[in-house]
Amino acid sequence: MDSRLEGTDEQVTGIDDLPVRDELRGKSPYGAPQLDVPVRLNTNENPYPLPEPLVERIAERVREAARGLNRYPDRDAVRLRTELAAYLTKTGKHPLGIENVWAANGSNEVIQQLLQTFGGPGRTAIGFEPSYSMHALIARSTGTGWISGPRREDFTIDLAAAEQAIAEHRPDVVFITTPNNPTGNAVPPETVLALYEAAQAAKPSMVVVDEAYIEFSHGDSLLPLLAGRPRLVVSRTMSKAFGAAGLRLGYLAADPAVVDAVQLVRLPYHLSAITQATALAALEHTDTLLKYVEQLKAERDRLVAELRAIGYDVIESDANFVQFGRFADSHEAWQKILDRGVLVRDNGVPGWLRVSAGTPEENDAFLAAVREVKKEL
Amino acid sequence: MDSRLEGTDEQVTGIDDLPVRDELRGKSPYGAPQLDVPVRLNTNENPYPLPEPLVERIAERVREAARGLNRYPDRDAVRLRTELAAYLTKTGKHPLGIENVWAANGSNEVIQQLLQTFGGPGRTAIGFEPSYSMHALIARSTGTGWISGPRREDFTIDLAAAEQAIAEHRPDVVFITTPNNPTGNAVPPETVLALYEAAQAAKPSMVVVDEAYIEFSHGDSLLPLLAGRPRLVVSRTMSKAFGAAGLRLGYLAADPAVVDAVQLVRLPYHLSAITQATALAALEHTDTLLKYVEQLKAERDRLVAELRAIGYDVIESDANFVQFGRFADSHEAWQKILDRGVLVRDNGVPGWLRVSAGTPEENDAFLAAVREVKKEL
Repeated sequence: MDSRLEGTDEQVTGIDDLPVRDELRGKSPYGAPQLDVPVRLNTNENPYPLPEPLVERIAERVREAARGLNRYPDRDAVRLRTELAAYLTKTGKHPLGIENVWAANGSNEVIQQLLQTFGGPGRTAIGFEPSYSMHALIARSTGTGWISGPRREDFTIDLAAAEQAIAEHRPDVVFITTPNNPTGNAVPPETVLALYEAAQAAKPSMVVVDEAYIEFSHGDSLLPLLAGRPRLVVSRTMSKAFGAAGLRLGYLAADPAVVDAVQLVRLPYHLSAITQATALAALEHTDTLLKYVEQLKAERDRLVAELRAIGYDVIESDANFVQFGRFADSHEAWQKILDRGVLVRDNGVPGWLRVSAGTPEENDAFLAAVREVKKEL
Repeated sequence: MDSRLEGTDEQVTGIDDLPVRDELRGKSPYGAPQLDVPVRLNTNENPYPLPEPLVERIAERVREAARGLNRYPDRDAVRLRTELAAYLTKTGKHPLGIENVWAANGSNEVIQQLLQTFGGPGRTAIGFEPSYSMHALIARSTGTGWISGPRREDFTIDLAAAEQAIAEHRPDVVFITTPNNPTGNAVPPETVLALYEAAQAAKPSMVVVDEAYIEFSHGDSLLPLLAGRPRLVVSRTMSKAFGAAGLRLGYLAADPAVVDAVQLVRLPYHLSAITQATALAALEHTDTLLKYVEQLKAERDRLVAELRAIGYDVIESDANFVQFGRFADSHEAWQKILDRGVLVRDNGVPGWLRVSAGTPEENDAFLAAVREVKKEL
């Protein structure tokens, strides 16, 4: 190379010296602190490792997939979507086929594809906050305007106020997280239905029901509402009930037209052959994995009961986590619990913290810690 | 559930009945036809399956990762980025560390993250076409305005015309694909440097050099240009040289500030534990995989020579594919080749087709087919 091609001495010192978009300036990447402590109950992970026969089955299916890794994966993930549809049909009390199901790298990517298709520049989305904070962050990264809709002080959705917000802002996409994260409470089906109708009257808009934690709910999935509601989408994940947060497999169920539409924005071959093979292996072991879900539900109910017995306020939970409080300073309480070797989550909801249901031993350690902390605060 | 929660009878008949973004209406999903024919030379895949010891190593590392699959993956992919940096340092004649490297699910996701960070609504990107068509499509799905920059009739970049386009449009992001896809020719380093300088003079803008096929080039990577050029980004993939199209692992090298910036838009935990484990296994076998690259370069050179001997026009190729022509009707020629059991790619460049370098046997079958077709057209 000639000397002109050598380096220059221009230096930048950080992000703000680059031409990043204005709305990203001064922001930090999303993500819970990853601290090395004995008991980690901060990211709603399933505490149970996959059973060893499933680990072996994953190795076996991945070995098979690796033999064809020089080829692009099945772009349409036909086998995987078929099996996901079968799982939903079996557990969701509503028949679904491959044409109703789409999968991506985590439900975050599902949501991103939905906002790229139905949101984006010049459009808006609404969520009822506090809720899963990635909805707002993915709105920002897709150029979708974000509207923070209201909740009551007890974290239930005030239907009249929510309907009014929809009528006023006419959002293109409505997010309803049920069970809600980080508060844990489910949204009654009647409320979801009323919000869908309000959204249709206002625009019509897409309504995305985020059911990431539905397998842990006392109630049923809202999948039966899909019938005849082509602008309703139910999003799901294998991160929680399937104990596979490390796999990054999210999916949605909806009218076939929605599945067609997201394919206009999905990156081609977005889902690797390895991911498809691993998810298929996990789906073979659904019955075993759902038994862990039953254990976690029992532990979640125990956490609610014991936290109340200690004297905490607790929001009724349909998820694998519990929001508890109230604290004059929730960050101080978070630190005091951490000092006792237990990591919970401060989601920035003033006065409250969130704990994921762990193994019985982990939950015992957590309860011992918050019992002590209660005396100090 | 009460009866209001049952299905309605509203039906939609397709995408256009949904509130999709206007720019998506009437569009089709991107992707080459996936046809079941004896010889598939249409998607620039590496024809050599991974060697069996690597397949076993992948199964082994994935088994290990599956044991912790209930936990989220390393959000920052520290091990993987360290090994990718080591590979680039070894092969790219330029020292790079983890702070210079970012990885995602295919180079398409890398490009999407770059456009979400530096492009997006109200901003524009330029590419010199024909080139990798996903650049324009990802611009569309991220709300980035797309400018189709010029090439000469021989598919080289006319520097004066390109500089003029940059000065006139002042794009926020400039894409330079080298070796270019689908034409195969490399862009001279002096041209890349001049375009970087033009982009800085105009705005300053980010310049993304897409080196997906660089391992097949007669020349060197442009990684050394990164020194002191904080708005230059080099994107790479393991799909081609590493024979791992099914893995979906793309990466970039750039100033550490760029790596920090894309983390503002990356989906948290975007890269699964399984993907990280598989990519790390493949990187252990770099030397073996690069020997296949040498075989493919020899076959690529043979394709160029034999196509010319048959009487075709051929664009000089630095990639694992060759663009050849000229045809009065390239779709007709594509069909005639397909009728002989060989699938090549019609990229919509009038008069030209693209063939991927396959195994010697596949290339022989292709050459036999085009020899016959030459007599008919």
